[in-house]
Amino acid sequence: MLSPAVENLVAQLTRLPGVGTRTAQRLAFHLLRATKDEAHALARAIDDVKERVRFCRECGNLTEDDVCAICLDARRDHAVVCVVEQPSDLVSIERTHEYRGLYHVLGGALSPLDGVEPSDLRIDELLRRVERNGVQEVVLATNPNMSGEATAAYLADRLRGRVRVTRLASGLPVGGDLEYADEVTLGRALAGRREM
Amino acid sequence: MLSPAVENLVAQLTRLPGVGTRTAQRLAFHLLRATKDEAHALARAIDDVKERVRFCRECGNLTEDDVCAICLDARRDHAVVCVVEQPSDLVSIERTHEYRGLYHVLGGALSPLDGVEPSDLRIDELLRRVERNGVQEVVLATNPNMSGEATAAYLADRLRGRVRVTRLASGLPVGGDLEYADEVTLGRALAGRREM
Repeated sequence: MLSPAVENLVAQLTRLPGVGTRTAQRLAFHLLRATKDEAHALARAIDDVKERVRFCRECGNLTEDDVCAICLDARRDHAVVCVVEQPSDLVSIERTHEYRGLYHVLGGALSPLDGVEPSDLRIDELLRRVERNGVQEVVLATNPNMSGEATAAYLADRLRGRVRVTRLASGLPVGGDLEYADEVTLGRALAGRREM
Repeated sequence: MLSPAVENLVAQLTRLPGVGTRTAQRLAFHLLRATKDEAHALARAIDDVKERVRFCRECGNLTEDDVCAICLDARRDHAVVCVVEQPSDLVSIERTHEYRGLYHVLGGALSPLDGVEPSDLRIDELLRRVERNGVQEVVLATNPNMSGEATAAYLADRLRGRVRVTRLASGLPVGGDLEYADEVTLGRALAGRREM
């Protein structure tokens, strides 16, 4: 009952994560009400990102150049490398303003069931960086879920003896309630308890 | 810390309704992971919709032609016209499969505070359609909120004596709970009670 162009836009929007048919229709109607220039700015931004953005040769972060701004930043600590699954995880860690080292973006996590093997991730590149560049600590910041933990365990094995390997602490979320913590998290918080 | 192209995409996505910075980042990272063809299909769909879709000359619905498919459909009842605020409302009513008449899309609702006057809506076009085309009933299906009710009252005034004017029933939502109904809705449901 809508025009083919609108139906197509709704179908395309539905492919985005977390966007169902209702949301896609709402977004489509918003774009129909927007000016042609506003809508085109979004279309252009999508194409631009695919044309200009690539992966940093060093760390796998997103960049428009050969090497990303973080790798080129001489004020950062080049002896520490934080390993994350995705560029979005890097953004989350940068937002804390607690970390001043470099990153290494794996491009995913090990998951044999989904066919993700070590060779599918940027693991060889990580080992080479550690050999070559005088890295003293590797912080494993893969997700605290099954595939993230498996990836961290695998990397710790491969890196053992070559460099100090650390892992992000697991425990209770700040501002959370003991009552609502799941058993695994609470167990980890207990095991990782610290002197005060 | 992201590339300018990614920052720009996030900014453009944030302009969509209901999309905050976090969601925009999630969508942007999804598009970065998608193939160039997939991303371009979305960009193209947005531009297409602005180039090809316009308003039906008769009813104001979205169409890629002069007159929309609903207005052209001879199997529909051309003596009944349902007045809605937006094309999305038309979609909602079509989804019920309970209505076989035509539509008239106003393009909004009266709202003097926001500067929306009768001349900003397709009201003259509605009056002309009623005069000209042997319309026997106008169903007012503007939203059951302040501006929608004001618009319905205004239209009922203008149409009185020329044609039968009806309004969508207000009452309890089906599957809802008396306990959770607000007083206004419950009051309307009482006032509109029917014999069984």
